[in-house]
Amino acid sequence: MHRADLGFIGLAVMGQNLVLNMERHGYAVAVYNRTTTRTDEFLERNPGLKLIRAATLAELVDRLARPRIVMIMVQAGPAVDAIIADLLHLLEAGDLVIDGGNSHFKDSDRRAAYIQAQGLDFLGVGVSGGEEGALWGPSIMPGGARAAFVRVEGLLTAISAKAPRDQAPCLAYMGPRGAGHYVKMVHNAIEYGDMQLIAEAYDLLHRGLGLTNAELADTFAEWNEGELDSFLIEITAQIFRAMDPLTNQALIDVVLDKAAQKGTGKWASQDALDLGAPIPTINAAVVGRILSSLKSERIQAADRLPGRADGQWTGDREEGKAAIRDALYASKISAYAQGMALLSTASAEYGYELQLGEIAAIWRGGCIIRARFLEDVMCAYQRDRILPNLLLDPAISAAVGARLPSWRRVVSHAVLMGIPVPALGTSLAYYDSYRTARLPANLIQGQRDLFGAHTYERIDRPGNFHADWSR
Amino acid sequence: MHRADLGFIGLAVMGQNLVLNMERHGYAVAVYNRTTTRTDEFLERNPGLKLIRAATLAELVDRLARPRIVMIMVQAGPAVDAIIADLLHLLEAGDLVIDGGNSHFKDSDRRAAYIQAQGLDFLGVGVSGGEEGALWGPSIMPGGARAAFVRVEGLLTAISAKAPRDQAPCLAYMGPRGAGHYVKMVHNAIEYGDMQLIAEAYDLLHRGLGLTNAELADTFAEWNEGELDSFLIEITAQIFRAMDPLTNQALIDVVLDKAAQKGTGKWASQDALDLGAPIPTINAAVVGRILSSLKSERIQAADRLPGRADGQWTGDREEGKAAIRDALYASKISAYAQGMALLSTASAEYGYELQLGEIAAIWRGGCIIRARFLEDVMCAYQRDRILPNLLLDPAISAAVGARLPSWRRVVSHAVLMGIPVPALGTSLAYYDSYRTARLPANLIQGQRDLFGAHTYERIDRPGNFHADWSR
Repeated sequence: MHRADLGFIGLAVMGQNLVLNMERHGYAVAVYNRTTTRTDEFLERNPGLKLIRAATLAELVDRLARPRIVMIMVQAGPAVDAIIADLLHLLEAGDLVIDGGNSHFKDSDRRAAYIQAQGLDFLGVGVSGGEEGALWGPSIMPGGARAAFVRVEGLLTAISAKAPRDQAPCLAYMGPRGAGHYVKMVHNAIEYGDMQLIAEAYDLLHRGLGLTNAELADTFAEWNEGELDSFLIEITAQIFRAMDPLTNQALIDVVLDKAAQKGTGKWASQDALDLGAPIPTINAAVVGRILSSLKSERIQAADRLPGRADGQWTGDREEGKAAIRDALYASKISAYAQGMALLSTASAEYGYELQLGEIAAIWRGGCIIRARFLEDVMCAYQRDRILPNLLLDPAISAAVGARLPSWRRVVSHAVLMGIPVPALGTSLAYYDSYRTARLPANLIQGQRDLFGAHTYERIDRPGNFHADWSR
Repeated sequence: MHRADLGFIGLAVMGQNLVLNMERHGYAVAVYNRTTTRTDEFLERNPGLKLIRAATLAELVDRLARPRIVMIMVQAGPAVDAIIADLLHLLEAGDLVIDGGNSHFKDSDRRAAYIQAQGLDFLGVGVSGGEEGALWGPSIMPGGARAAFVRVEGLLTAISAKAPRDQAPCLAYMGPRGAGHYVKMVHNAIEYGDMQLIAEAYDLLHRGLGLTNAELADTFAEWNEGELDSFLIEITAQIFRAMDPLTNQALIDVVLDKAAQKGTGKWASQDALDLGAPIPTINAAVVGRILSSLKSERIQAADRLPGRADGQWTGDREEGKAAIRDALYASKISAYAQGMALLSTASAEYGYELQLGEIAAIWRGGCIIRARFLEDVMCAYQRDRILPNLLLDPAISAAVGARLPSWRRVVSHAVLMGIPVPALGTSLAYYDSYRTARLPANLIQGQRDLFGAHTYERIDRPGNFHADWSR
């Protein structure tokens, strides 16, 4: 019997497409799904391929060449642990277990230790690219033992996206244990930020400047030709052109404004708080989704709360559009600076030894946040591998500086108009806080010392001091 | 031998002052501290009182009238568990263990179940008021079994603060298990918000309008006569008058602008994310402290990053001051609305059965966030016990409405001037998001459906839909 190169567990859309991608690159894949009808439908829809049906995990393992490689792609959480527990009864020392789902990095840290202690290899692999990416080439972020990575480097290279400029594979070894899933979590967190920023730009263009859906589509398509060139801007243009078959009106206008989430933005926000790494734009994006979900309260509040104040959008429409584009781009830089700084802090804290330049490089293609801008991020870390913050790179700071007046004008106008721009505003507040040598936190320390004897440091000598504030 | 009414463990500043408060109200207290020299010093400094020295936990327990009451006030975390473990060997069924520290509510949930399973009573009690409050009357937030609360209601009532207007004790039973510590956590989170907002107002008054420390002291003292009347505004005025004995200059100017934190703001932010409750002003305050701590990076960035743009503060100084006061007050309302809504969500999720009106009532005196404004909050929940959001109360929304033009003007000016106002800006963005019936989250749902087949809801019919966005 012909043995498969790899066993694959979990045939949801992403899983199916990854399998097809592997098969297209010459790999024989044994496939298993808990609900076997899904396996059957998948094989019926894709006849004549090097795919092997497995009805049970035992059958799957039995069909694999040794040492075996098994990749899991199921919902993050207990399901992954359950499958690993079953697999450990079937596999043997030297076999490799890959978790390709969106697992929490702490789970991957734990599983890496547990599985490696049994003499098997483990990789926690972040995969980004959505359905299309999975099929035609995602960005791949593997974490685990380097030796384990080397075993599948050829496979992962084959199925990965290639960066647009230099065709480099969007794949690199991230670091030990949960490093891959950590990087994927931050990728998704940045994605939250990007999406919220684009949504706010849409709100400003639509409610502020009065652009129609057709004009919005044209505007985003035009922006996609410049420095904002990215997958998310491209699909935004496409979305404004899509028609609703049920009503024959623009589809965007019938979509309910309640944004859902699957947890990685929340995880990143929570971990950043534990690490003491500021990612306010990402926090604002997560909160933005939460607030959007309070639809019935918002409808009630819209009737009852005073709103629009004394401001109106000033200046002409083309100028307004250009300013919003600048504010979006500058905010995007701020959000990425926060995300990259989080990676840097996490790397030191968890011993992941992340290479920020390589991470930017493999995000250039395949993944949801792929963007021309990531070339600049990559270059910044090539210039200085230990850059403390992306904003400190000369090219990046010049790019922000050129857009600073527009950025301030747009946020200021939005505030006066009453159009909420939490992410655009927070991105600017982060920038302004970061470049402020003396913040008013001295007052906070004074308050804490006065009421709680928490002590304070001084600007002129070392040590911790407690004052009699009634002097 | 005379038996003590209560045993007290942990003689840091808060503990010492609570013991003195109890003793002043007629209670005999046996006291224990791990480092016995601290116990001795405390007793030497306070001779002739009804205090009983205990060198060991066994001795402490031995000195108590039965059924025994023991209160723990040590650093939150493993130390509390260690003491409880030791106490459980010494106490017997019917005895009561009180944790008066800043424990995480989940630890209190766990300890309540564990201790009650052994036939003892447990209360997790939030105590706020700093050193002075502990001595002269704090605000007290007890959680646990109601029967256990009743046992110490007299004691806690005696030592609690009394609200300024009606002299009502700042004490009420909060709810089962960790309810008291949950409310205390949110109290502290709101305190983070208040302090960051005041710090931003200081920055605007100082760097924006050029007020001197003497003028700042006068301004905050004047504000403390009006709707901002509160402990934190009062001490802020005091802080600007304090002189540094080492340099004979204003103390505020030699305090380093790195704000520290002890974790409750972070806990609240993390739990709010788990609950899906938006508290962006508190997030901004926590991030503000984190950013302040990056002092050396900020100094570097101040040199390298472009900053001040095209804006200047416009209008005269008195008008500017009044607008900043209005912005501060409106932002404070927004922050409290977020905190109260978090309490409401948590109450439903954890079964705490919190009474928001009572919580506002007991925060009116004693605690760090005590403020005249809390009378209004209390009244709002007396008018409607299940108000979904404080902003929906007519009196509260009118108060915001009257200040909305100033609020927008101040945030907008700050943005143009390059003075970071993350908390003032975020408070306004929360308000504007909350009162917006149609947010641009429809675009986010469109994007998620396009790249990940995550589906979307529609405005015109129920169900989950997946579209072909290339149509």
